[in-house]
Amino acid sequence: MKISEIAARIGGEVFLNGQLDCEISDIRPIEKAGPGELSFLANMDYERYLTITKAGVVILSEKQSTLTFAQIIHKNPYLAFAKAAQLFQKNNTTFTGVHSLAYVDPTAELGKDITILPFAFVGKGAKIGPRVFIHSGAYIGEFAEIEEDSTIMPHVFIGERVRLGKRVLVHANAVIGGDGFGFAVGENEIVKVPQTGTVVLEDDVEVGPLTSIDRAALDVTRIGRGTKLDSKVHIGHNVQVGKHCMFAAFTGIAGSTRIGDWVLMGGHSGTAGHIEIADRTKIAGMTGVTNDTETNVTYTGFPAIPAPEWRRLQVHQRKLPEYAKMIKNLEKRIADLEQQVSASTKSSS
Amino acid sequence: MKISEIAARIGGEVFLNGQLDCEISDIRPIEKAGPGELSFLANMDYERYLTITKAGVVILSEKQSTLTFAQIIHKNPYLAFAKAAQLFQKNNTTFTGVHSLAYVDPTAELGKDITILPFAFVGKGAKIGPRVFIHSGAYIGEFAEIEEDSTIMPHVFIGERVRLGKRVLVHANAVIGGDGFGFAVGENEIVKVPQTGTVVLEDDVEVGPLTSIDRAALDVTRIGRGTKLDSKVHIGHNVQVGKHCMFAAFTGIAGSTRIGDWVLMGGHSGTAGHIEIADRTKIAGMTGVTNDTETNVTYTGFPAIPAPEWRRLQVHQRKLPEYAKMIKNLEKRIADLEQQVSASTKSSS
Amino acid sequence: MKISEIAARIGGEVFLNGQLDCEISDIRPIEKAGPGELSFLANMDYERYLTITKAGVVILSEKQSTLTFAQIIHKNPYLAFAKAAQLFQKNNTTFTGVHSLAYVDPTAELGKDITILPFAFVGKGAKIGPRVFIHSGAYIGEFAEIEEDSTIMPHVFIGERVRLGKRVLVHANAVIGGDGFGFAVGENEIVKVPQTGTVVLEDDVEVGPLTSIDRAALDVTRIGRGTKLDSKVHIGHNVQVGKHCMFAAFTGIAGSTRIGDWVLMGGHSGTAGHIEIADRTKIAGMTGVTNDTETNVTYTGFPAIPAPEWRRLQVHQRKLPEYAKMIKNLEKRIADLEQQVSASTKSSS
Repeated sequence: MKISEIAARIGGEVFLNGQLDCEISDIRPIEKAGPGELSFLANMDYERYLTITKAGVVILSEKQSTLTFAQIIHKNPYLAFAKAAQLFQKNNTTFTGVHSLAYVDPTAELGKDITILPFAFVGKGAKIGPRVFIHSGAYIGEFAEIEEDSTIMPHVFIGERVRLGKRVLVHANAVIGGDGFGFAVGENEIVKVPQTGTVVLEDDVEVGPLTSIDRAALDVTRIGRGTKLDSKVHIGHNVQVGKHCMFAAFTGIAGSTRIGDWVLMGGHSGTAGHIEIADRTKIAGMTGVTNDTETNVTYTGFPAIPAPEWRRLQVHQRKLPEYAKMIKNLEKRIADLEQQVSASTKSSS
Repeated sequence: MKISEIAARIGGEVFLNGQLDCEISDIRPIEKAGPGELSFLANMDYERYLTITKAGVVILSEKQSTLTFAQIIHKNPYLAFAKAAQLFQKNNTTFTGVHSLAYVDPTAELGKDITILPFAFVGKGAKIGPRVFIHSGAYIGEFAEIEEDSTIMPHVFIGERVRLGKRVLVHANAVIGGDGFGFAVGENEIVKVPQTGTVVLEDDVEVGPLTSIDRAALDVTRIGRGTKLDSKVHIGHNVQVGKHCMFAAFTGIAGSTRIGDWVLMGGHSGTAGHIEIADRTKIAGMTGVTNDTETNVTYTGFPAIPAPEWRRLQVHQRKLPEYAKMIKNLEKRIADLEQQVSASTKSSS
Repeated sequence: MKISEIAARIGGEVFLNGQLDCEISDIRPIEKAGPGELSFLANMDYERYLTITKAGVVILSEKQSTLTFAQIIHKNPYLAFAKAAQLFQKNNTTFTGVHSLAYVDPTAELGKDITILPFAFVGKGAKIGPRVFIHSGAYIGEFAEIEEDSTIMPHVFIGERVRLGKRVLVHANAVIGGDGFGFAVGENEIVKVPQTGTVVLEDDVEVGPLTSIDRAALDVTRIGRGTKLDSKVHIGHNVQVGKHCMFAAFTGIAGSTRIGDWVLMGGHSGTAGHIEIADRTKIAGMTGVTNDTETNVTYTGFPAIPAPEWRRLQVHQRKLPEYAKMIKNLEKRIADLEQQVSASTKSSS
């Protein structure tokens, strides 16, 4: 692909800077890239490499005509790099079509140009859109629907009636549409409440390895467009997650909680059930949110409080031994004073 | 199924209230149910729907003869609903019998009316009871035993010699009987201690997706009758869990701990190893229990303490900045007093 | 195997103590072992069993000629037991060779004496060393390499180009080489950064069930020789873990962090990304490390601090209500004093 075509595809501006609009063969880090290769500078720690890089073209946020290589100008070079990197992704696939060692129910509907590898299982009435890739050992339940260009990695479980949008990527061993954790508790028994709802993953959702998203009790557990879940996230039943959220590993969302758009959650964080997390809330790692949150606020700790207050309390907590000493010292000084005052009162009487 | 038959099966009392003992076709939420459908009222937030519901029959805790529909009376309507819902569960199964794409060792013993789907593996000497359902891609190890009416979802691992009771449900990608985390540490090496024990899941246990229960070093890791584990729970080797417990997602129990009956654990909670958790202990989310607990007490925090004390400490912690200010203010007032008293002592001498 | 041969193989000294160098058939706990069986004493709680055990030979740290059985002397009896136990491990394997129900790409290279069970998938160009055991349903990606004597349990995912050393053991449903969680965030979109690096597990690494180790963005995520990971550990992309570490269940390491040798991490603990954990650091359960650590120090809490300081702060925190009362009491006494002093000043003026 030529420099100008890459620029057009990633929404950047070409600045050839006197160089040829040459063919680019790969993307590499700035200190390793050579002629005919693309690199980028997003982190100023690496600025020194600009004068010595051998890259054929570099993505920068501003034109630098004193440098000697071709440039693609984009206000967010890391984003531009990510888009460019996708253009150069290689596909190692051994096979396309439905492999003879896969099991596909005869009532399943298969789109064009799909791939279904050995030991994958596609249940009755499932609808698989064009160019969907179903890896070895993946399980697609009855009447599940997967739209075009989605990828299901090995050993993924997609439960019955679950619906996936376009370009959804589900990593190995994830479980989409297992039963929600719903029980009625009697005096001598715990009785399962059948979980008859389902799960919807909207377009461009990515689900990490070993992540689970439970089906709703009656309605739908939903993950909004473009949201990215890391490994080992757990989403309880009836949860609604908005668009463009990012949840790190071990994030847990308890049942029926509603989460807005662009919410960030750190590793080992969690929320209680039945609460509302506002748009653009940030939740730090190891933080447990027990109440509704406010937009654009960062929360930390358990129970979660706004991060600046949490940091202030941390400072005070570290000083507790000092405060204890101060209190004891004050007590002694007061006792002394009381004695002196009492003595002087007596002596003056 | 007729209203009277449903009532009999769920242990409720029929109150036809002048209506026919008609055939009921499905269960739906009270605001959506129509004629010929069953609903329930367990949560008073929904009481207003009683006057407008179109349901053919509603489960209530007390007879209400002013309402116009048939009723089933049960002291715990949610429990009664859960039982009724199970009567209406549909089975989407494509297939019964042993599928030709499954692998079943010739020495395995198979009960009547079992289902084994494509790509499931049943090892030598395994015993599979009547009506057991083994889903696609599940693995049943050598000499494992699964009693009647149990269900093993896709990609579950049941290790060798593991024993499952009746009506056990193991969700997708769970691992029952992986090795315990047992090692002997030398100066220059860490040596694995072979984990030669096993796991027993008693009747009516439910194990969530991606949950792991490690086999004992020598004896048995045991989960008691009716206990329900959510997604991504981890149970270490040699742990004994009692009956009717419920553990939420990311609960972790370290090795050799003993847990009583009816214990509740919240999300992201855990216990140290080699301790005793008393019957009916409640452990809040994000709580780490490091010592034995007492019956009927709720614990919170890390290290865990009784919840009322934890809440009190939280209030004080939030006031730390105020306390610090008070201490500084007192110090100033004492310094002033000391000066005045010292001055007055001098002046009076 | 004779007593003398066992001693030689585990690096212990034989002390027959007047007994025959007899054949040993099994290993059992000291209170249960009989003639012809080996046991050990590592924990002094069990010392009383020495006088009543029926074991044929016992591993002890020092010769005890007053006892009546043969002994193997080793300075670390538990380590010696672990090594001996491995000598007695039974192999239940039904089958060796490549099963006809496995899928092995014709371009894969297979070593001698390997086992590949039904429904395992071995991708193109993969290299499988001698005596490697690939269990039912395991997935080995394109160009992955697995060295001799390694074991891959059911439903494990080994991604493309991932490399495993000798004697590596990966437990059921683990995911090695899923994509790292790397995204570029734009104003209206989150764009995936292709994760084109890989993962290396060095010799003797053990990976627990449901554990995930993400592939690096560009280079290598590495787990050092002899390191043991429990169930449900997560290792982010570009992380470097040293040798002989042990991480308990739910440990999470965020991207690009470097971890030294012999580091211990407790359950539900985690580290931030891009930090350095020094050799022999110990991190307690439920602890979140946000900064670099020092060698040989134990850390606790969130944010993690050295354990002795954390314990001291815990004591003070529990006393907060008392401190609050003391402050209020001092305030009252000061107010009294102020009144008295003011009165006496007035009266003396």
